[in-house]
Amino acid sequence: MAFPLPPGSTIGILGGGQLGRMLALAAARLGLDVVVLTPDEGSPASRVVKRTLVAAYDDQPALAALAEACDVVTYEFENVPAATVQVLNALGVETAPGKLALAVAQDRVAEKTFLNEAGAPTVAFAPVDGAADIDAALPRIGLPALLKTRREGYDGKGQAWIRDAAGARAAFEAVGGAPSILEARADFKRELSIIAARGRDGQTAFYPLSENVHEGGVLRTTFAPAAVEPALQSEAERIAGEVLTRLDYVGVMGIELFDLGTGVLLVNEIAPRVHNTGHWTQDGCEVDQFEQHIRAVAGWPLGDTTPAVSVEMTNLLGEEILGWADLARDPEARLHVYGKGEPRPGRKMGHVNRVKRL
Amino acid sequence: MAFPLPPGSTIGILGGGQLGRMLALAAARLGLDVVVLTPDEGSPASRVVKRTLVAAYDDQPALAALAEACDVVTYEFENVPAATVQVLNALGVETAPGKLALAVAQDRVAEKTFLNEAGAPTVAFAPVDGAADIDAALPRIGLPALLKTRREGYDGKGQAWIRDAAGARAAFEAVGGAPSILEARADFKRELSIIAARGRDGQTAFYPLSENVHEGGVLRTTFAPAAVEPALQSEAERIAGEVLTRLDYVGVMGIELFDLGTGVLLVNEIAPRVHNTGHWTQDGCEVDQFEQHIRAVAGWPLGDTTPAVSVEMTNLLGEEILGWADLARDPEARLHVYGKGEPRPGRKMGHVNRVKRL
Repeated sequence: MAFPLPPGSTIGILGGGQLGRMLALAAARLGLDVVVLTPDEGSPASRVVKRTLVAAYDDQPALAALAEACDVVTYEFENVPAATVQVLNALGVETAPGKLALAVAQDRVAEKTFLNEAGAPTVAFAPVDGAADIDAALPRIGLPALLKTRREGYDGKGQAWIRDAAGARAAFEAVGGAPSILEARADFKRELSIIAARGRDGQTAFYPLSENVHEGGVLRTTFAPAAVEPALQSEAERIAGEVLTRLDYVGVMGIELFDLGTGVLLVNEIAPRVHNTGHWTQDGCEVDQFEQHIRAVAGWPLGDTTPAVSVEMTNLLGEEILGWADLARDPEARLHVYGKGEPRPGRKMGHVNRVKRL
Repeated sequence: MAFPLPPGSTIGILGGGQLGRMLALAAARLGLDVVVLTPDEGSPASRVVKRTLVAAYDDQPALAALAEACDVVTYEFENVPAATVQVLNALGVETAPGKLALAVAQDRVAEKTFLNEAGAPTVAFAPVDGAADIDAALPRIGLPALLKTRREGYDGKGQAWIRDAAGARAAFEAVGGAPSILEARADFKRELSIIAARGRDGQTAFYPLSENVHEGGVLRTTFAPAAVEPALQSEAERIAGEVLTRLDYVGVMGIELFDLGTGVLLVNEIAPRVHNTGHWTQDGCEVDQFEQHIRAVAGWPLGDTTPAVSVEMTNLLGEEILGWADLARDPEARLHVYGKGEPRPGRKMGHVNRVKRL
């Protein structure tokens, strides 16, 4: 496939959630068609794309159909099976971001090891294959410490705090005895993130840092641009630039950061995809994170990331979406609704960007 | 159907061109699904909607399927057959804008008669059913005069200039002997237009006037906001308000105006739909004409029409779309591509909005 892909080309997206939907809407504006592969019937993305393949991510005929239909394939979530990417590549269709980024993002030990090698500081950590590894690492990691599975997908058994040395065994049982990572607690002042992009030509672009507030582990609000010193923005861009370049990355990445308040930023995690903390760019920047990702994946030049306004993004969780009529009346509120069915508690149903001129 | 329609509702669109496509993209942002009815396979809108019915506009089973699927139906073009609307209404689905707006917009004599009654000045005109009517009207209309068919669709035989009194018969033959309208020539300084909207509750909203440049009968460029005195904006809003209210209109309307340079605006024509001269709002206003139309049709409150920037909109006709790569590199250019196949000469393939901060 010759890049840049001209209008009329087709982009495949693995995953049919709201991120896939907003990527598809951005692609449409540029005249690019989208085909989605998702195991879910009636997914948010399926209502706004040329074609949806409803199948498991390892369904060979569906992957063959996707490869046949698409000029390039990307994804809206990081836990795409490595085998899926391998099959697509073997069928002759390129995937972006690449395998290395997925491998790093899918394993918390690989991720933090990679980050430290890239000069991106993280909390102290140790790989854990049994309770004895915890006992051995605790003197260096300190207390309290957080035990997490290396990979996602253990039915809520994903993480456990260790408050004292005697708690190692219980914590390891709490995460289901899975291969894990022990992490020191970050004594941070606030949570920031940076949305960064890299094109096929190696060009990079960075949005201003945003400040993020989580509640119960779920993003509640993003403020952007965050009130930070220029030096902190530079440090975030330095980290992001190293990460993108070393991964030979193509696309948008969300990088969550802990601001220690001392000028030091620790990387909490990287997401090799568009990111909830970048939704503010939809109403804050000429080119938002979704168009930026499509531009990168399609081999187009990256767009301008300078905001003309400041934005407060608030997720609409569960029944909060029922407040849509009031939000529709608010001239400062820009409403984005995902086309999901049931407003189950905590489910991300939409978000609202409140825009203030700078 | 109870309005406002909540997210998850379905809007039907008659027509699958670029206007339908951009309406569908706006609906998606608000969490509304779209079903399109169009006679054309692979239409621009069909790539971004939940479902496309490919059928003629008088296809009864297709209209039944559309009525069954949709909570309300709108259109992207004004020449929707009256019978189509009648069938949909009989099947219990509301259409917006209503029948009166379509009837007025489909017949140039009815349109100008309505406009004058509404206090909206137009050029002098006369209905023509034969060459003798031209002879009778010319002393009042003056020379040169323009003969147009009352309705669209006569294979390019649509209009003919009459330069002298002897030319009446030839002109009437040139328009195929169809029922016609004779129009005086407007001695205008420039072409303006106003994009106006009216909600289900009777609320109205007006965008700033734009200045439009046509070439060979096709829109080339729109500048907005146009450099006009506040009094001219007020006069345009007065006219638009009268037109919308008297038609009990729901939706967005494009109103083309001749600026005589004397403070007088003549209405050239009204389009009961989103309009090419309103594409600038996509990158000029928080709520663009497409979202505004969807809001009105769905019974939502109208959105803010105040621009934060000035915009120069240029249509990309035929092979001009091949310049997409340069436009993608231009930080001031916001590219919109319609997903059409062949870039035939003169075909509207996309447009570019060049944004300047005010």
